[in-house]
Amino acid sequence: MTDIYLNFIASALGSGIERNDQKTLGQDAADCERIVKKTGVLSRPIVVEGEYTSDLAIRATQQLLQKGDNTSAEFGALVVCTQTPDHLIPGVSSQVHGKLSFPKNCYTVDINQGCSGFVYGAHLMGAMIRGGALEQGILVNADCYTRLIRPNDLTTRVLFGDAATATSISKKRSGFRLIDSRCYSDGTGYDDFVARGSAIHPDEPIASGIYMNGPGILTFALRVVPESVNDVLAQHGLKTADIRMFAFHQANSFILGKLAYKMGLSSEQVPQNCAELGNTVSASIPLLLMDQQQHLKRGDLIVAAGFGVGLSWGTALLEYVGND
Amino acid sequence: MTDIYLNFIASALGSGIERNDQKTLGQDAADCERIVKKTGVLSRPIVVEGEYTSDLAIRATQQLLQKGDNTSAEFGALVVCTQTPDHLIPGVSSQVHGKLSFPKNCYTVDINQGCSGFVYGAHLMGAMIRGGALEQGILVNADCYTRLIRPNDLTTRVLFGDAATATSISKKRSGFRLIDSRCYSDGTGYDDFVARGSAIHPDEPIASGIYMNGPGILTFALRVVPESVNDVLAQHGLKTADIRMFAFHQANSFILGKLAYKMGLSSEQVPQNCAELGNTVSASIPLLLMDQQQHLKRGDLIVAAGFGVGLSWGTALLEYVGND
Repeated sequence: MTDIYLNFIASALGSGIERNDQKTLGQDAADCERIVKKTGVLSRPIVVEGEYTSDLAIRATQQLLQKGDNTSAEFGALVVCTQTPDHLIPGVSSQVHGKLSFPKNCYTVDINQGCSGFVYGAHLMGAMIRGGALEQGILVNADCYTRLIRPNDLTTRVLFGDAATATSISKKRSGFRLIDSRCYSDGTGYDDFVARGSAIHPDEPIASGIYMNGPGILTFALRVVPESVNDVLAQHGLKTADIRMFAFHQANSFILGKLAYKMGLSSEQVPQNCAELGNTVSASIPLLLMDQQQHLKRGDLIVAAGFGVGLSWGTALLEYVGND
Repeated sequence: MTDIYLNFIASALGSGIERNDQKTLGQDAADCERIVKKTGVLSRPIVVEGEYTSDLAIRATQQLLQKGDNTSAEFGALVVCTQTPDHLIPGVSSQVHGKLSFPKNCYTVDINQGCSGFVYGAHLMGAMIRGGALEQGILVNADCYTRLIRPNDLTTRVLFGDAATATSISKKRSGFRLIDSRCYSDGTGYDDFVARGSAIHPDEPIASGIYMNGPGILTFALRVVPESVNDVLAQHGLKTADIRMFAFHQANSFILGKLAYKMGLSSEQVPQNCAELGNTVSASIPLLLMDQQQHLKRGDLIVAAGFGVGLSWGTALLEYVGND
């Protein structure tokens, strides 16, 4: 099977910062301390007035074009994974395409996925390249969930950050080799995480905003992530000790700790970036890969696992091959 | 290259009907006559109170499962193409997945595409099958644009109908062989068709609703459709006379007539379904293929071409191989 590589990753954060402190949350000091201790989230990038998903997506893609040494003319597809597009019609990918002068034979598509969206996107684009429908593409993961969260909904407000990443994907040996990827779905859990009153459904008389069944999502994650990770490891004759890094979706420190404990992983194997970023939805895994790249050496194996809204989840096995 | 087939197509229409007549539109008889004469649209299916995109998508998929003789357990991916999801989070595909008991290893994804969405979806799923990421999948095209249209905006209101189709796609020889497909995008035309005030962008102080640059879209369609059709024909050594049917996106009769005239096609080669359906967005091409199937014989070549919002367009070359 053709080898596929995630070549370069670039990012853009919301221009504002919101801290999980007394002043911002309007809670007393002990409550804020408890929130920070449990979630591991100290502060989060958030979009500011007039800033939308397309702005983050465009900035991340611009960064990628500078970093990766490829011009926009060299890409055949631009896929934006988002659940918070500026408009329902058209997708954010059309905005990025127009603003950054991508060519007409570079097709654009938005996919609607949440925290599993990086693995889903890499899986789809990997298949498109293997299937001969694409030579080289860009996957953008961009969201600003904070625009949907009710300010008084502390359960979700303290968790989510707004960010975007752009990842170039091709057959060129550089970055991370995509050895395997698998995507899963369980629509019976649709109601466990819904943006009520968004898009075309009014959801009267429920107030608009994100509704999350926290305990349900936790139980789900602790079941499906170990299971799907073990499946992919078994398929390749690997053990958890063979994996240098588990790039789990950065939901929050509590879930990450539980996952590591359940799977018997060292804290070194499960790096986190949520203290200063929060849960950046489908951008969290590529942001982590970007941050951690400096600590990796060629040949290191990485498991990426995204999970969340849908419900859906995806697991990928990667090998770091370096960038030169 | 692996042959890919669009095996079966099923559909579901909005439960209401809106006629382009005096009573509905509040215009005088001469104006209504002019509207019907120019657009070719007499009436359109529309969603009724409490009916959303997910309802149409679920009904079309149920129909497909009955028609195609495959159970939901036999599909590996469920892709819903929509621009009017019930909620921003999660996608409509999660609802269909949950309601119709698709298995967990059948992954779900929503793609945001308008009138080019059938060709885009078939292109992506064809590549996924060729790339080994999928054996058999379902592409659903579902929208209810009427929920976004301002009632007094007659320019768009008289055109759009609400409908869904579900198409099974696999390597099994049956239905329509997907010989070739190409997708294109031009994001510089983003503003030519926008649902203002939808999703997370408020677009103050513009009233929410669909804004369409009709003349701009017409010029665009008359330029890109003949060009991309000629490209795919040339690539396969074909002439327009070799093509039994041009399944153009059913924007309206006016555009279809102009396209046929410009490309020198007979009216028999350019069937229409917009008189009783209107513009059903990305469902229009599969609805047409479904309707016209009875008039086709094995070996007939078909060109499908979708164009619209994004701006984006896609062209596919198909061969009818029959269903038995």
